[in-house]
Amino acid sequence: MPNAGDFIRVLLKDETLDGIVMPSGDNYLVLKLASGYNIGLENKKIKKITVLKKVVSSRIKEEKQPVKSDITILHTGGTIASKIDYSTGAVSAKFSPSELKTLFPELKKFGKIRSILIGNFLSENIRFEHYNKLARTIKKEIDNTKGIIITHGTDTLHYTSAALSFMLQGINKPVVLVGAQRSSDRGSSDASLNLISAAKFIKEKIPGVFVCMHNSESDDSVIIMNGVNCKKLHSSRRDAFKPINIEPVALISEKIKWIEKPKMKKEKFKVYYLKDLKIGILKVHPQMFVEELKTFEKFDGLIIEGTGLGHLPVEKFDSLTYENEKIFKEISRLSKKIPIFMTSQTINGRINMEVYSPGRKLKKIGVLGNYNTMTSETAFVKLAWVLSNFKNVDEVMMNNFFGENSDRLKDGF
Amino acid sequence: MPNAGDFIRVLLKDETLDGIVMPSGDNYLVLKLASGYNIGLENKKIKKITVLKKVVSSRIKEEKQPVKSDITILHTGGTIASKIDYSTGAVSAKFSPSELKTLFPELKKFGKIRSILIGNFLSENIRFEHYNKLARTIKKEIDNTKGIIITHGTDTLHYTSAALSFMLQGINKPVVLVGAQRSSDRGSSDASLNLISAAKFIKEKIPGVFVCMHNSESDDSVIIMNGVNCKKLHSSRRDAFKPINIEPVALISEKIKWIEKPKMKKEKFKVYYLKDLKIGILKVHPQMFVEELKTFEKFDGLIIEGTGLGHLPVEKFDSLTYENEKIFKEISRLSKKIPIFMTSQTINGRINMEVYSPGRKLKKIGVLGNYNTMTSETAFVKLAWVLSNFKNVDEVMMNNFFGENSDRLKDGF
Repeated sequence: MPNAGDFIRVLLKDETLDGIVMPSGDNYLVLKLASGYNIGLENKKIKKITVLKKVVSSRIKEEKQPVKSDITILHTGGTIASKIDYSTGAVSAKFSPSELKTLFPELKKFGKIRSILIGNFLSENIRFEHYNKLARTIKKEIDNTKGIIITHGTDTLHYTSAALSFMLQGINKPVVLVGAQRSSDRGSSDASLNLISAAKFIKEKIPGVFVCMHNSESDDSVIIMNGVNCKKLHSSRRDAFKPINIEPVALISEKIKWIEKPKMKKEKFKVYYLKDLKIGILKVHPQMFVEELKTFEKFDGLIIEGTGLGHLPVEKFDSLTYENEKIFKEISRLSKKIPIFMTSQTINGRINMEVYSPGRKLKKIGVLGNYNTMTSETAFVKLAWVLSNFKNVDEVMMNNFFGENSDRLKDGF
Repeated sequence: MPNAGDFIRVLLKDETLDGIVMPSGDNYLVLKLASGYNIGLENKKIKKITVLKKVVSSRIKEEKQPVKSDITILHTGGTIASKIDYSTGAVSAKFSPSELKTLFPELKKFGKIRSILIGNFLSENIRFEHYNKLARTIKKEIDNTKGIIITHGTDTLHYTSAALSFMLQGINKPVVLVGAQRSSDRGSSDASLNLISAAKFIKEKIPGVFVCMHNSESDDSVIIMNGVNCKKLHSSRRDAFKPINIEPVALISEKIKWIEKPKMKKEKFKVYYLKDLKIGILKVHPQMFVEELKTFEKFDGLIIEGTGLGHLPVEKFDSLTYENEKIFKEISRLSKKIPIFMTSQTINGRINMEVYSPGRKLKKIGVLGNYNTMTSETAFVKLAWVLSNFKNVDEVMMNNFFGENSDRLKDGF
């Protein structure tokens, strides 16, 4: 196998690709193409590899035991710490502290950087056990650093940030997730500003789990959000992430502008891990069929992403709506077996199952979540976390840990 | 049974409710409570009804055959055409033209109003056959009116508007869906402005299917959107509806301000009805299990609401991600049997299955939708419409009928 940084030619069954090797998985070769995009290639599909230009390997020399640092960066993937040198065609994964400082010179101002490779994967592939792996590493490292930055693919960054928020209860240092919508080797990359701003934020010593991403299309300001209730709301824009039903924590450009500074709480740090649970998400739509619910019979929990204030078709009102009766029966049956929690596909706003009759019916049969203001994504990981650690599911789900169940959500929010 | 408009007391198993009878379904009594909210009560659950105050019934006298009108209003439910008179406690469903003009005096300016009751239901219960019923009525009425207004519950209004957009190909008059987030009998109701503005818009004689809702929290301007690609984005705000990946058609306050005036096309009007198909929506999330896909084996089509540019976990990259291989196999198998179409849970932005390896893999096994800009909701009803009427699924899905597959979607949109 070639080393990360080598410029190679890969022969596949029906195409040939030139590119630079990125840190790859067990069965996978990740190749950075000239376009700046990474693609993953299954090893078994590769017919032949020719190394076109060998590069002195720049793999990470990991210190196994924690050492004192000002910032510890955990790399999980995404393109934030990689760069092509177009003049030579060479690239290397820039994971070591000195390399990171070369790539992002401003990092030098922030003291000693420690760098740990957790993995290198597209974030849609992440599973609960990866959250546990991150939490274990953070637990091990946290006492020897002033703050932690996690680089992360953007697709599910908001799920991970919400999961870690709940898992790292009482953490006494800042943990900041950063992603980039454009790879670091492209002119328009948002990688540098996001990373440097996360480092700046760590200096503020606000404990908790946060997300740091571009605040607008221009390259001059970032938004710091709580790890819970932020959401990727554009497939490609750099300012894709927005807080939902909650204020941002701060905006950072030259200076930091606090919007809703988290209150300092004295809590004991304890990590709550996730079990390997099956939690479903059901998006409600017109013309539903009862089969769509039956899947979840052997699941541990279900998020229903309802319409409006938290509805789904459970009322037969004419000869065309017999199916709705079946759906109601199935939900009644299901809610006796597993916790079912309601969110809204309107994204913004509060669930209210008191206003209309379907909501009242659903509440009566035990569907949880009345008055919650969580995104489906936050409710999903929170339900997994609650079921992994607590008995009083309803109570802990409705608890407002980090603003995810905003009690100040105004009508006009 | 009491008549619509009667003020009654209903005795249920464990509660007593006072309220005013609204037009109700076969097995259902809809009661408007003093709070202004409607609730539906199953007839079989009602122990006793006492009429506290009888009101002269104001049920609609429907003219069965079309008659000439300036505006034809089709009522499907929602609260837009009902009002409590708090001084007497009486209410009646205001469906007849003269009653509508009493309720909304400004309507008088718009000439002869015809009023047809399609149904009175919470919109999450709507099924494809209701879309057909609406389309049939519109076909029957359209030549005798200058335009049609459909009053509709807001929960799934955007699904209905998208469905009708595709079903009423080449319609030569305006069809405008209006809803209200607050019932007409509340001070803060948006019903009047939305309805009157829809009537104003009809005078512009722009053919097509549109949605007319509040443009802001203040009560002075509405937004006219194409029936496709608008979405309810707040559970309670009056300005909940926004166009996605597409410009609004117009804003109306005192005057109409065109943003993207639809081009007039000379087409022959033809209605394309929907079959009673099973179309699923699968929202992708971390920690997915292959069972979540198996449900759809006997379905007619599937929308995958992927992450980011159109992804789901289909790559095994470490010992924790075996499930991803199973998911990939199942999607490969499924895509040979039924059309699978990709949308994004980021809501905004374009699908691009060329950038990352999972997208490329999915495209290769036949997952459709590369480069589309449709909301999941629009893609869902469009897939049903395409499968009901055409053989070339991919081609018609990717066709840009009303801006839903915007070719001008800029990066910064």
